Amino acid sequence: MDEPAVSAPVLRNHCQAILEALGVPPADAALVAETLVEADLRGVHSHGANLIALYVQRIRSGHIRPVTEVATVEDRGSTVLLDGGLGLGQVAGVAAVDLAVERARRHGLAGVTVRELTHLGALAFYSERAARRGVIALVLQNGPAFVPPFGGLTGIFSTNPFSYALPAATHPPVVFDIATTAVAGNKILLAKKRGDERIPEGWATDRRGRPTTSTADASIDHLQWFGGHKGYGIAFLVEVLAGVLADSSFGRTEHTASPVHGKDRVAKGACFLALDPAAFPQGESFATRLDALIDDVCSAEPAEGVARVLLPGQLEHDLRARRLAEGIPLAAATRAELARFAEELGVGPLEEGVAMGGTTDEGAGSPGERGGR
Amino acid sequence: MDEPAVSAPVLRNHCQAILEALGVPPADAALVAETLVEADLRGVHSHGANLIALYVQRIRSGHIRPVTEVATVEDRGSTVLLDGGLGLGQVAGVAAVDLAVERARRHGLAGVTVRELTHLGALAFYSERAARRGVIALVLQNGPAFVPPFGGLTGIFSTNPFSYALPAATHPPVVFDIATTAVAGNKILLAKKRGDERIPEGWATDRRGRPTTSTADASIDHLQWFGGHKGYGIAFLVEVLAGVLADSSFGRTEHTASPVHGKDRVAKGACFLALDPAAFPQGESFATRLDALIDDVCSAEPAEGVARVLLPGQLEHDLRARRLAEGIPLAAATRAELARFAEELGVGPLEEGVAMGGTTDEGAGSPGERGGR
Repeated sequence: MDEPAVSAPVLRNHCQAILEALGVPPADAALVAETLVEADLRGVHSHGANLIALYVQRIRSGHIRPVTEVATVEDRGSTVLLDGGLGLGQVAGVAAVDLAVERARRHGLAGVTVRELTHLGALAFYSERAARRGVIALVLQNGPAFVPPFGGLTGIFSTNPFSYALPAATHPPVVFDIATTAVAGNKILLAKKRGDERIPEGWATDRRGRPTTSTADASIDHLQWFGGHKGYGIAFLVEVLAGVLADSSFGRTEHTASPVHGKDRVAKGACFLALDPAAFPQGESFATRLDALIDDVCSAEPAEGVARVLLPGQLEHDLRARRLAEGIPLAAATRAELARFAEELGVGPLEEGVAMGGTTDEGAGSPGERGGR
Repeated sequence: MDEPAVSAPVLRNHCQAILEALGVPPADAALVAETLVEADLRGVHSHGANLIALYVQRIRSGHIRPVTEVATVEDRGSTVLLDGGLGLGQVAGVAAVDLAVERARRHGLAGVTVRELTHLGALAFYSERAARRGVIALVLQNGPAFVPPFGGLTGIFSTNPFSYALPAATHPPVVFDIATTAVAGNKILLAKKRGDERIPEGWATDRRGRPTTSTADASIDHLQWFGGHKGYGIAFLVEVLAGVLADSSFGRTEHTASPVHGKDRVAKGACFLALDPAAFPQGESFATRLDALIDDVCSAEPAEGVARVLLPGQLEHDLRARRLAEGIPLAAATRAELARFAEELGVGPLEEGVAMGGTTDEGAGSPGERGGR
């Protein structure tokens, strides 16, 4: 790794300080910073400290409010609709997932929908938070309208991420988190920047929608769905549960107090579905049975050239453990951005950051300690 | 089309007669026949009358019981566990989805799990049945252990199908139904039989798990997941909700009274999740909003070389309308199989079948009339 590493607590405190300097209350700033550092720990740099630039820009432009007021639009018990008030998405997201867990424990299954939510960061943070409390969670989110339907050119959907987490007994939860597009647009941008001649099949089409592996011809305005029409079907479900069901914006329909629409839309919709395994018949031993399935997967014979067979999300889980010990390699561009914001906002430099609360494994907003595997 | 067409009611009655001759009660035989003909109408021939051979063989061998007794293992209101008694899967499947709809109306969300279920046919039949009643349904099912985890060689999973259906207002429901493997094994077998030199990228690996596009090298014991690790994650969720949560067989764990295990396993597990949109805040207008999204998709500009942009499942929906009018082209092999069983069981030939109940659009077990689009 060329990039110098930074420890998780130092990076977290630095991000928190920048957010606080923008008027974000300390507890909210700590939560947002934690979600970013958790993503960096898992190797999901697109959703890590890299996002500070976006948040700074949107708070300064007024498109994200620094003080988040989460309102209950209507509470029907097993279903609740929240309004994220165009504040920081993470604050509304944690409120939503915690409520979904509470209601699933009471009703067996629960669905909390959220509108006027902004960027949530990586969804794994929320689904894992539920699974750490013994509850199965599915988290879906829509967003700006720029990805075309399968076979089309008109931007209607977002990258429509989908995440779930499943509580095991002795193993850590199985945590899955994907964009339903084949790749994020910045992977194609990166290939263009590096001057790669070819990108893999299925990543992109050209501007007229014809499949291409030519990096030069690939259009980032025409992202493709993972697995073709099958991934498109998953993305459509996300749009419906996170956008339509939440009475939020979806497709070309705008339903937001935010003035920015379409591909610039800041307001997202989200859906947090929670199932309490213990509420299902025979569910008391669900986690133990899931352990057995995890063992089946982990003991499977690997294909030639594969070191070991992995669970969904295991790569990220294992990377997190390593980075907690060795630090997070931070891209030079991200480091420079953070330094610029810190200077502008009168925050001390990253290197001088002092850990305020131990490792990121502690504190109320944390996913908690993970078992070894 | 080379194959002579048969009308849906004639094919349905013929399949029903064969099943009745094996001791299946008339109402159950009619239901199973209807699910098969519905799949043939939608072009999903792998789940159509082609399956009669499998059912005949398994009823004769005693692995499927001709008389299906669906038992309630435990009823907790919003969650129920059923036992399909190793009878015909369709009978248990319809009982499960109807119960899930009823409970979703009462509780907002509901989960009905089923164990000791046998072959369900195409899952779209059940999810659409719920959506026709105004309820969002997700249907998941696991099965015999023969598909390896991503990057592995050991058979642990089935093709783990996933289906959903969403109720619209003036449009027909959006119905999605996929195997989470890239393709069914019989697509690879067919390529081998035809002597095709190459199969598409991502369909298969060789016996050592190395990706291949050589038809000769492709192993049908090592099916690949759609979209690589992302599809694998969806398949894992199916295994957990349909197998683990239902206290059914999963992975290498057998939990069945059936004597056949592993890759020969007949008993499946299933999970029917139902969400009543009307139980969600602002949910009364859900179907109208879904109509708007459907219109956005259908009016999107098509990519070059694409006739029109489709919704998930629209291809099957449109084919069904055409085949209801023009008949179902039946493969010669399927026709020959049906003729052999009919002769062995003393059932009249297919051509002489007489429609007993109008079109398949009528009757209690039917998904009902579809709006035009």
